[in-house]
Amino acid sequence: MALAYDGAIQRLINAFAQLPGIGPKGAQRIAFYILSASDEEADALAEAIHEVKEKVRFCEVCGNVCETSPCPVCADPRRDRSMICVVEEPKDVMSIERTREYHGLYHVLGGAINPMAGIGPSDLSIPKLLDRLKTDEVKEIILALDPNIEGEATVTYLSRLLSPLGIKVTRLASGLPVGGDLEYADEITLGRALSGRQEI
Amino acid sequence: MALAYDGAIQRLINAFAQLPGIGPKGAQRIAFYILSASDEEADALAEAIHEVKEKVRFCEVCGNVCETSPCPVCADPRRDRSMICVVEEPKDVMSIERTREYHGLYHVLGGAINPMAGIGPSDLSIPKLLDRLKTDEVKEIILALDPNIEGEATVTYLSRLLSPLGIKVTRLASGLPVGGDLEYADEITLGRALSGRQEI
Repeated sequence: MALAYDGAIQRLINAFAQLPGIGPKGAQRIAFYILSASDEEADALAEAIHEVKEKVRFCEVCGNVCETSPCPVCADPRRDRSMICVVEEPKDVMSIERTREYHGLYHVLGGAINPMAGIGPSDLSIPKLLDRLKTDEVKEIILALDPNIEGEATVTYLSRLLSPLGIKVTRLASGLPVGGDLEYADEITLGRALSGRQEI
Repeated sequence: MALAYDGAIQRLINAFAQLPGIGPKGAQRIAFYILSASDEEADALAEAIHEVKEKVRFCEVCGNVCETSPCPVCADPRRDRSMICVVEEPKDVMSIERTREYHGLYHVLGGAINPMAGIGPSDLSIPKLLDRLKTDEVKEIILALDPNIEGEATVTYLSRLLSPLGIKVTRLASGLPVGGDLEYADEITLGRALSGRQEI
């Protein structure tokens, strides 16, 4: 007997092992779960994969994922059209929506500037963002990028590009995470929390 | 906008979150990976799920998963038919095959005795094992069950059942894992390693 499973099981394990966050042991566990699951459950998973590839597209205005273009946020007349929150990925839109603190529009860049990975400004959805600023409606751009090197580089690039347009450009506050412990905060975060201290 | 994704994406996230070892964040990450993957890659995953449900069955002799029944191990004339290694799950067969130390046959019980979960001896493939012992071929039964309470209970049950048949019944050795550290071994494992010490 070979040291791999029979064809179909091994192909399923391999297919799952290619997904992010799943190792070979996890893929094996999932494959045996699917084997012992009902046909309906397995079909539902396969169908969900097909469906998402068929139905989901990117919003032609903001670049978020959606089944209708423009997406529900862009199409919603109750959203504040004077603010655009710029994020890296579609999943960041959902993270901000979950805060229930923001009621403006979004713009998804599709990543961040990362010279090491060969991603420059021309690979991001920046021209589309500039197009959206041509009307007088937008008063503020919130740069909500990841607080890492790539995010910082993108914030610097965009703030230089946008400041001559006379639009207010803001960024998310850096500081201590809520529920965290001062003792365990790294020096950079604690430094940012100090320099960004607020009067109470 | 609702605090969940548009239909198809959310359905895919939910489908993945039901799989073992995948939480909501991991499911979201996988869903976005599939969204950005090629159609071919997504189709291959969905097809692998369908294929495994269609093609894979259980070997009528040993209970292992296979695409042909009897399975390649049971059908292989080079395997030593005087030994049967009893395991809980089909994946345990692969773990033992990978050691390249065993060349006999297998018998998959389909679980272990677990009164808390309502699994008794009658839920396991024990009658089939007894049927296989009716010929004079089998000289040794190796009980390769998980070294936990359920596995121990099953070993005790099976050894009482099998010893009157005059067949040699053995179990896997307990002791220190290779590459492990004596300091970090728990007392029960270290105790087993002591009581099972071997002359060199």
